[in-house]
Amino acid sequence: MKGLPGFRDFYPEPIPTADSWSMDLRRYIFDTWRGTAERYGFREYDGPPIEELGLYTKKSGDEIVGQLYNFNDKGDRGVSLRPEMTPTLARMAASHSRNYKKPIKWFSIPQLFRYERQQKGRLREHFQLNADIIGEENQAADAELIALLIDTLRDLKLTNDDFVVRLSSRLAWQDFFENSDGQEKDAYDFYQIIDKLDREDPAVSGEKLAEIGFSIDQVNDFIESGQATDELAAIIGNIEARGLGNFIEIDYRIIRGLAYYTGPVYEAFDKRGKFRAIAGGGRYDHLVKLVSGGKTDLPALGFGMGDVVLAELLKEHGLVPALGQTLDAFVQIADESLRDASLGLVQQLRQAGLTTEYPLLKAKQEKQFKRALELKAKWLVTLDNANQVHVKNLGTRKELTVPLIEVASALQD
Amino acid sequence: MKGLPGFRDFYPEPIPTADSWSMDLRRYIFDTWRGTAERYGFREYDGPPIEELGLYTKKSGDEIVGQLYNFNDKGDRGVSLRPEMTPTLARMAASHSRNYKKPIKWFSIPQLFRYERQQKGRLREHFQLNADIIGEENQAADAELIALLIDTLRDLKLTNDDFVVRLSSRLAWQDFFENSDGQEKDAYDFYQIIDKLDREDPAVSGEKLAEIGFSIDQVNDFIESGQATDELAAIIGNIEARGLGNFIEIDYRIIRGLAYYTGPVYEAFDKRGKFRAIAGGGRYDHLVKLVSGGKTDLPALGFGMGDVVLAELLKEHGLVPALGQTLDAFVQIADESLRDASLGLVQQLRQAGLTTEYPLLKAKQEKQFKRALELKAKWLVTLDNANQVHVKNLGTRKELTVPLIEVASALQD
Repeated sequence: MKGLPGFRDFYPEPIPTADSWSMDLRRYIFDTWRGTAERYGFREYDGPPIEELGLYTKKSGDEIVGQLYNFNDKGDRGVSLRPEMTPTLARMAASHSRNYKKPIKWFSIPQLFRYERQQKGRLREHFQLNADIIGEENQAADAELIALLIDTLRDLKLTNDDFVVRLSSRLAWQDFFENSDGQEKDAYDFYQIIDKLDREDPAVSGEKLAEIGFSIDQVNDFIESGQATDELAAIIGNIEARGLGNFIEIDYRIIRGLAYYTGPVYEAFDKRGKFRAIAGGGRYDHLVKLVSGGKTDLPALGFGMGDVVLAELLKEHGLVPALGQTLDAFVQIADESLRDASLGLVQQLRQAGLTTEYPLLKAKQEKQFKRALELKAKWLVTLDNANQVHVKNLGTRKELTVPLIEVASALQD
Repeated sequence: MKGLPGFRDFYPEPIPTADSWSMDLRRYIFDTWRGTAERYGFREYDGPPIEELGLYTKKSGDEIVGQLYNFNDKGDRGVSLRPEMTPTLARMAASHSRNYKKPIKWFSIPQLFRYERQQKGRLREHFQLNADIIGEENQAADAELIALLIDTLRDLKLTNDDFVVRLSSRLAWQDFFENSDGQEKDAYDFYQIIDKLDREDPAVSGEKLAEIGFSIDQVNDFIESGQATDELAAIIGNIEARGLGNFIEIDYRIIRGLAYYTGPVYEAFDKRGKFRAIAGGGRYDHLVKLVSGGKTDLPALGFGMGDVVLAELLKEHGLVPALGQTLDAFVQIADESLRDASLGLVQQLRQAGLTTEYPLLKAKQEKQFKRALELKAKWLVTLDNANQVHVKNLGTRKELTVPLIEVASALQD
């Protein structure tokens, strides 16, 4: 029996096949995400993996349903596995924002789901780091979040040879749109066309733009100008003050497809290889109000970073650290009459915080030794008798004999 | 807008209402679970939160469907949110068991789902520590797993005043059943009755037993005998050798409702208060074969420990540690002309691994100081000028002035 198509099994190292997913690599990525976010003063939250369907259609319109993993539950309630975290965050923050000092700085590592037509190897779930700031409209908050994004990737050992954050602004585009006499009713289509410029035949984009009264030259001129608005200049100045200026550049091709962004938007791109988006985010000042039905109005901004592209990137760049099991101690049982005493020794070592293994059953000494090496044990520990322990450092080959009651402290260094 | 009934939102401390769920407490429990399991040499895995419905009905029969959070997906495939982890584990282990040395020692912390009729406050999801050993039929494996269960609870600061593991055996019951001329067709009903003995009116249990040819006295005599079989004696001897004997006792009232257990079974109980089950498990030697359609036959055993009862228990016993945000450093910006330099300082501290906060916007110094105290900052750090930093330890009140380039190392101790 297999798992459902598009869902991953995460195995401990050594993973069984080259295209298996590694739980150890997942742990490395999650631990790094958590570590960086916490150093920045962000606090972890989580919500349910299922929400009412209306939470997502309210934000993104009914057209989103085609991509959702939605169904009717046994109470005939329209529900969906979460396709993104922001609506849940907006719901949670709106319910209890009064309990927290603003700005609220929160992060989460949700698993997200999309039901797209199944293509070969296409996943229907992934994990994502979501970091958001709620309750601050100043660009200082955008800069703090972008700095977190940059440092998260740096903590994964990626450098400015590997990635760059391309910064743009919905406000700058809005000014362009209005100054070019764009019609409000065409705004959504306009942003969709800009979002696809890089991926679509320029002739097709040009035609679509013409239909709503724009010329592609005019659009390209604006993009190429690359001139910072006051808003973007403030963000870049802030990032430069942190010494991170070489990780960011203005690029008006970035616009982010989603309808709800209201200010600065950005994406982090893989500079080598395929120039894939590694992460993306922006400001969404109206969403909390929308989700709370007008009860709570708080500016907000956030970014998401998925685990799948990131894992590929780390592998391609040789940045996956050594993974797999290691032990502090392997307790060898050379004499079965000392098994009970050896179990006491195992307990003593584990209680002292040492990762400890031992043979569950009687086994030849050479087999035990081989197993200790496989498990990368630092120490091989053997009871000589009920009171005395022989200890061997498998790295340095240093050996010593210590009283049983002193063994845990002897292995601490 | 609210979350779905029966699903929890996890907020960072300080949690907004007394009955809110704390992400910090969840992290404490998960971190402890992981720490103990890894010290025992267990390795983490994970599977999808959704599986084909057949994976669960194959193991538990069609009657399980009533309790499942199941639905038809958009491909009209019968699927279910996972109600337990063992079928996924059996599927994963069966697929790739050849890649791993036996016994396989794995753990996971899945979120599990049940769609039960909604009762007040009744949850439809919870998290569970699942630890399993695959590929070892000797009782030494059962003992290793029970020792892990005991030490997991001890690492959460519970003592043998707080809990006990009640050990029983399906084999012992099977002997009793056969020696009493029980009929194979009645076995399932028999185990269900025994499982409910504690909760059901003795007269009702007696009647039900009589219907399948047993007397309740005969059953009670067996339970009261409390005599260890060789199998259970081996387990208890092993646990005693580890010095954990006072955490375990034989109790034949334990039988575990699920049909698939084949050997030792046990539950950990809260000794004070409500005598609730905190965790439970046992041996299920036929499940891997069943799930793999006969392709892989491996003995297996495991236990599960849920987060909801555990969190209640820790609260009742005053064992929840101090939770909530703390900082290494709060960078105060007393002079706005030094804001850019202060951002550089913030970056320097964070890069040195220090959890660091600062005011995003201009603020009065006393307000900044108050915020530093609220966030439990160890150090208050203020730039005097572009090269010199004033540092104050908010605990000891010790103050010092250091050159900017040395500040990170000055705060390391």
